[in-house]
Amino acid sequence: MMLINKYGRELPEKIGNYDVRPYRGPWEAEPADRTVYTNRKALRTPGGGSKVVRSLKEAILKSGLTDGMTISFHHSFREGDLIVGQVLTIIRELGIKNLKFAPSAVVNIKEPSLVDFIREGIITSIEASGIRGELGDAIMSGVMEKPVILRPHGARPRAIEAGELSIDVAFIGASAADLYGNATGQIGPNACGALGYSFIDAFTARKVVVVTDHLVDYPCTPISISQQYVDIVAVVEKIGISEKIGAGAARVTRNPRDLLIAERAAEMIAASGRFVDGFSFQTGAGVISIACTNYLSKKMEEHGIKASFALGGITSNIIDMYQKGQVRVLACSQSFDDISARAMANEVNIIEIDNAVYSNPHSKGSMLDQLNFGILAALEVDINFNVNILTGSSGEMMGGLGGGPDVASGADFSIVTIPIVRGRTPSIVKKVFTVCSPGETIAAVVTEAGIALNPAHKFYNELKEDLEKSSLKLVTIEELQKIAESMTGVPEPIEVTDKIVCIVEYRDGTVIDVIRQIKR
Amino acid sequence: MMLINKYGRELPEKIGNYDVRPYRGPWEAEPADRTVYTNRKALRTPGGGSKVVRSLKEAILKSGLTDGMTISFHHSFREGDLIVGQVLTIIRELGIKNLKFAPSAVVNIKEPSLVDFIREGIITSIEASGIRGELGDAIMSGVMEKPVILRPHGARPRAIEAGELSIDVAFIGASAADLYGNATGQIGPNACGALGYSFIDAFTARKVVVVTDHLVDYPCTPISISQQYVDIVAVVEKIGISEKIGAGAARVTRNPRDLLIAERAAEMIAASGRFVDGFSFQTGAGVISIACTNYLSKKMEEHGIKASFALGGITSNIIDMYQKGQVRVLACSQSFDDISARAMANEVNIIEIDNAVYSNPHSKGSMLDQLNFGILAALEVDINFNVNILTGSSGEMMGGLGGGPDVASGADFSIVTIPIVRGRTPSIVKKVFTVCSPGETIAAVVTEAGIALNPAHKFYNELKEDLEKSSLKLVTIEELQKIAESMTGVPEPIEVTDKIVCIVEYRDGTVIDVIRQIKR
Repeated sequence: MMLINKYGRELPEKIGNYDVRPYRGPWEAEPADRTVYTNRKALRTPGGGSKVVRSLKEAILKSGLTDGMTISFHHSFREGDLIVGQVLTIIRELGIKNLKFAPSAVVNIKEPSLVDFIREGIITSIEASGIRGELGDAIMSGVMEKPVILRPHGARPRAIEAGELSIDVAFIGASAADLYGNATGQIGPNACGALGYSFIDAFTARKVVVVTDHLVDYPCTPISISQQYVDIVAVVEKIGISEKIGAGAARVTRNPRDLLIAERAAEMIAASGRFVDGFSFQTGAGVISIACTNYLSKKMEEHGIKASFALGGITSNIIDMYQKGQVRVLACSQSFDDISARAMANEVNIIEIDNAVYSNPHSKGSMLDQLNFGILAALEVDINFNVNILTGSSGEMMGGLGGGPDVASGADFSIVTIPIVRGRTPSIVKKVFTVCSPGETIAAVVTEAGIALNPAHKFYNELKEDLEKSSLKLVTIEELQKIAESMTGVPEPIEVTDKIVCIVEYRDGTVIDVIRQIKR
Repeated sequence: MMLINKYGRELPEKIGNYDVRPYRGPWEAEPADRTVYTNRKALRTPGGGSKVVRSLKEAILKSGLTDGMTISFHHSFREGDLIVGQVLTIIRELGIKNLKFAPSAVVNIKEPSLVDFIREGIITSIEASGIRGELGDAIMSGVMEKPVILRPHGARPRAIEAGELSIDVAFIGASAADLYGNATGQIGPNACGALGYSFIDAFTARKVVVVTDHLVDYPCTPISISQQYVDIVAVVEKIGISEKIGAGAARVTRNPRDLLIAERAAEMIAASGRFVDGFSFQTGAGVISIACTNYLSKKMEEHGIKASFALGGITSNIIDMYQKGQVRVLACSQSFDDISARAMANEVNIIEIDNAVYSNPHSKGSMLDQLNFGILAALEVDINFNVNILTGSSGEMMGGLGGGPDVASGADFSIVTIPIVRGRTPSIVKKVFTVCSPGETIAAVVTEAGIALNPAHKFYNELKEDLEKSSLKLVTIEELQKIAESMTGVPEPIEVTDKIVCIVEYRDGTVIDVIRQIKR
């Protein structure tokens, strides 16, 4: 029998061993009155001693990793990650097979090729936030037997605490660590910043291996990951390349269309009645987002308004705002560049936060519940404001879920910034290929052709009233869709087979969509 | 059938419902390869909102507290605590009975009387670290039917994680908190300092109530207790009196005997081969301890030696050492005075630590495992170096277990500082009335009549060799006992009934001793 979720997606009751719970609405799934299981194995450590081993091979052997287990990593180094590749290569050498690969997000590394580990049967299952590049292409072509489970950031700690994802060995890269496992990403030659995504792994994995290239005197401070959760400290030559961790100052766009959208989004925030002293925001790391942060900073200066906090992934221009006294607290779950990676160590109000307190929908409250404005990127938005942040115009994997669905659900106003067309592809469409964030959680879509407000959003009337007092151009989403279509024509439908290659979970663990193998 | 533990104490197999596991040695009990249960109930909090209630009564009603449940508190305000009294008074008003009272330690408050709550059947069970004053006297006279379980600091998180103690409602006093439950003891008009003892309660209690008298803008920083664990924020008029939280500058002794012992202990540390750059120490808050810290600071200055970290309960004179650059990191599980309570908020290397990472023996490693020197207070030490920190000369309750047994077990050298007689009572005896810390974990006893090294200690030879090069007077523990006895005569044995009023657990959960009702 097929299930049908709230978006009309047909879903099988079971996908392999996976039991489908159909999505029913952004706030419908009741969090369980549950016991949280953490599989901590106590070490026996009378008289202190050291947890250091001098090679990853020794660490893996000591961890007891064997066929069929689940391994995890954080994604803080992004393109600059050198840990995933090293660990998987040694796992290959040791002949370990049939692993579940469950990083907080898949880092887009090229050498070694992640696809090879799948082809060789070393990785047979993946749970992550997104899969891009070569790996994404291979998954979309059906290289894996089991579908990949994709979860937004908040869903990962939720799934782990609910016992749906259970990590056997967590490999946590740290740019500094001491002999007993206290570790951080904030200092050292290869700083990667906040380790917020690894907290849940440290709390719950059966074995926790800190991987570092910079052993410091005991105790390592700041303590991001506490020794009480760490079994092994593996010292390697290099864990990653700080300069490649992502966005930041270098990614300032000069594209006039992107700048226009960014400025409009900032103007929209400034026109809202919630743009008052003590407001809060999350802007993110896309090129439009970074530009928007700069415009927002200017608006705040003009209006003499200060923010209480900025949340989530932090960039160097938000650090600048903090230094200027424009934001009281920066709550960093990840760091999007080298400058923000190092800022937490010295400033008491630039704080590292656990990804669970950032976004877990089934905790006793995540920080994004308190957020006024969230700026979101997207690949497609449809006329019901549903957002696709995963798949591109030919159905190919282009993005990751990240915190998008979480921010949309939590913030008072979640604002999608998006050009209406990209090349020959419309971004505002009748129906998104993959639903990631539910339309009703999106307050507005800001484009170069105007701002569309969502009549189904909980604060629609308030926002409409505020914006109508401004000079901002309001349009309907249908108008935007028509303009886009008039520029690009109607895109060919993407043809798929029956095989489900990705399951897209909403933050509460229900299935909001599935992605089927593309016909080639 | 009676069990006999390693100290020859006869123990019943069961004490009421309590299953006795006899103590077998300080590092014998194997930590289980266990699942850690945390009973977190997820809240449903779409759209943020507030957790604030304007009275403790409303908070208690909302928490669902009913007959037979377990409640917890931290002891950070000590004599200045105003929370326990307020909460219990409202519980009385509400007619709730038969509670288990499981604070991190019982605060010694007089108004209202804790004994009254026992007499009225409101509290029928107690698990704590120590019970003093009026409450202690009442327990020793048999006021409670069930025996009190006393645990050292490290044993409490262990017992909670092992499922032996399960908290229904945790009341966590915080000198500042925001509307969503982020809370700290470091700022605000009534700062109590580190909330290290409440971390485990926050992680695991079914309902967590933050009690504050100082609501601050969101987000409250520093974040000691995270909103993700908090259900309710109760705002009251006053939570405690900072100036009464304990020891500190005001407790500098001028007693020449105490000063002599303190100086000898510092000299002993300085004579050890482990007194080198990067050494670590915990001194504590007794009057001898505080004096010892000052002498140690002088010794470090004379020798040009700096410490890597100081651990545990922190006093203002250790803050002074930090300010002078003598200690790199202060890891604070509790704050023993108003100055140390506020020091963490502004200094990156004065850090608040979870009591579990401080002392839990069944975690993956506690910080005191890395400690070189620990200064301990005691009420009695016997000729096998067993330490009594609970009961006085007439068997009355005088102290609490605190972190003593933990530090003794973890530190390289645990040094008991004690005068050989107090008034007409010998402190060095043939057999302690209550065994709290096992003799083999004690390296030395420092008295005004000389220093006794423990031949059964793991580093005896090293210490002996180092001290023999110094001018310090070494004696045997038997000599000390004889001198003491010659001064006081042989004390009358304490007569007890068969009724067990306290179970003394060792840090691993085994029973190291029991205390029986005193015959009057």
